[in-house]
Amino acid sequence: MATAAILIIGNEILSGRTRDANVAFLGAELAARGITLAEVRIVRDDSDAIVAALNELRRHFTYVFTSGGIGPTHDDITSAAVASAFGVALKRNPEAEACLRTRYAANEMNAARLKMADIPQGATLIDNPVSQAPGFRLDNVFVLAGVPRILQAMFDGIKGGLAGGPPQHSRSITLAAREGDLAEGLAAIQTAHPETEIGSYPSFTEGRSLVTVVARGTDPAMLDNVLAETRALAVRLRAAVLDP
Amino acid sequence: MATAAILIIGNEILSGRTRDANVAFLGAELAARGITLAEVRIVRDDSDAIVAALNELRRHFTYVFTSGGIGPTHDDITSAAVASAFGVALKRNPEAEACLRTRYAANEMNAARLKMADIPQGATLIDNPVSQAPGFRLDNVFVLAGVPRILQAMFDGIKGGLAGGPPQHSRSITLAAREGDLAEGLAAIQTAHPETEIGSYPSFTEGRSLVTVVARGTDPAMLDNVLAETRALAVRLRAAVLDP
Repeated sequence: MATAAILIIGNEILSGRTRDANVAFLGAELAARGITLAEVRIVRDDSDAIVAALNELRRHFTYVFTSGGIGPTHDDITSAAVASAFGVALKRNPEAEACLRTRYAANEMNAARLKMADIPQGATLIDNPVSQAPGFRLDNVFVLAGVPRILQAMFDGIKGGLAGGPPQHSRSITLAAREGDLAEGLAAIQTAHPETEIGSYPSFTEGRSLVTVVARGTDPAMLDNVLAETRALAVRLRAAVLDP
Repeated sequence: MATAAILIIGNEILSGRTRDANVAFLGAELAARGITLAEVRIVRDDSDAIVAALNELRRHFTYVFTSGGIGPTHDDITSAAVASAFGVALKRNPEAEACLRTRYAANEMNAARLKMADIPQGATLIDNPVSQAPGFRLDNVFVLAGVPRILQAMFDGIKGGLAGGPPQHSRSITLAAREGDLAEGLAAIQTAHPETEIGSYPSFTEGRSLVTVVARGTDPAMLDNVLAETRALAVRLRAAVLDP
């Protein structure tokens, strides 16, 4: 089974200043390609932390996607940290420099912008159609921008090359019930369908206890069965089913 | 320096179905107590993954806060995994059971709800004023609910016992500029203020390139200096300063 991890690099995500939007995007895109997103890590703009996390993740998972820290400012240290993690040199990449020179006039080019052309040796560039500064791939690690619009455009260019499996589908149903009343019946449905992953998510809306049951798996017919059994459980418990 | 990590447990966060709201809350609360949130991990509802992550994090950081997986359904496996990670037994806790019995009438009590009273041996309970099922603390690990309202109420009860340091403050300013034009001047400001953490966050709004500069540290006067120098940099670059 193909698995993936995301390594998000950036103090601003940890401080809560910026809310991550890339996990939801990548999680859905990977599921559609039959790749299970198994772990996400968020670390600070700290070289040791990035190196340690990256070296662990790239050995455990089929693919690792990093997000953030490849811009021109002093706090953008991802490329250098990735080079350290792989034990390779960080070098000015002529192809990356040429990309940047299509965007910036000669009088706009400076050392900070050129830093974005410093790429670990042996890496393959990832096209950035939004703002030209490229990402790159090294072995099973894809280094992407943190800005969602750019990350999405970069992913669009690489997704065709990912080896996955049958797409993962999901179905959900929301019941007006409390989790503790559903739990036993839901556990029985899960036991009867070991190939389907069944999740139960409580919420409280307008004073009402709701539970959303989500079924995930590769066989849509099986997911429909799980949902039908969950509806039958709701009838037994006299719990209303809310239309999604 | 006191540091912390958050371990978020739940397939629903990885699938993008549910967007995490606990990192932003805990990050801000911890910063206010002088505790640096250094890492976040999100793992699946998988015992091995939870055990491995927890054992790494609790050795690296002053405090670990877990979020999610302590409810009554089959996919709630956090308490059992925490017991495994610490090598202690998971046992019915009479105090936790008493809490649950204040909420549920005798005819509502069932095995699934009682599961929420199974707590690793040696743990101290964390009060849950919202829905009674308690969290718990074991050594430097705080096991909290995933539902934000409950996590926040639980944190409210434990925050007084956390040993931190001087509160971390932040200041920010937004300039109508491109990062590559600011980078050199900003790096000089960072070099002059090593005790302040200066971050640079680009965005594109209504066709305009903006950069928000965030300064963080324990000395508010120093942060004001950093912001004043950033304003002066903006003047030199003829970049408009947007009121926050």
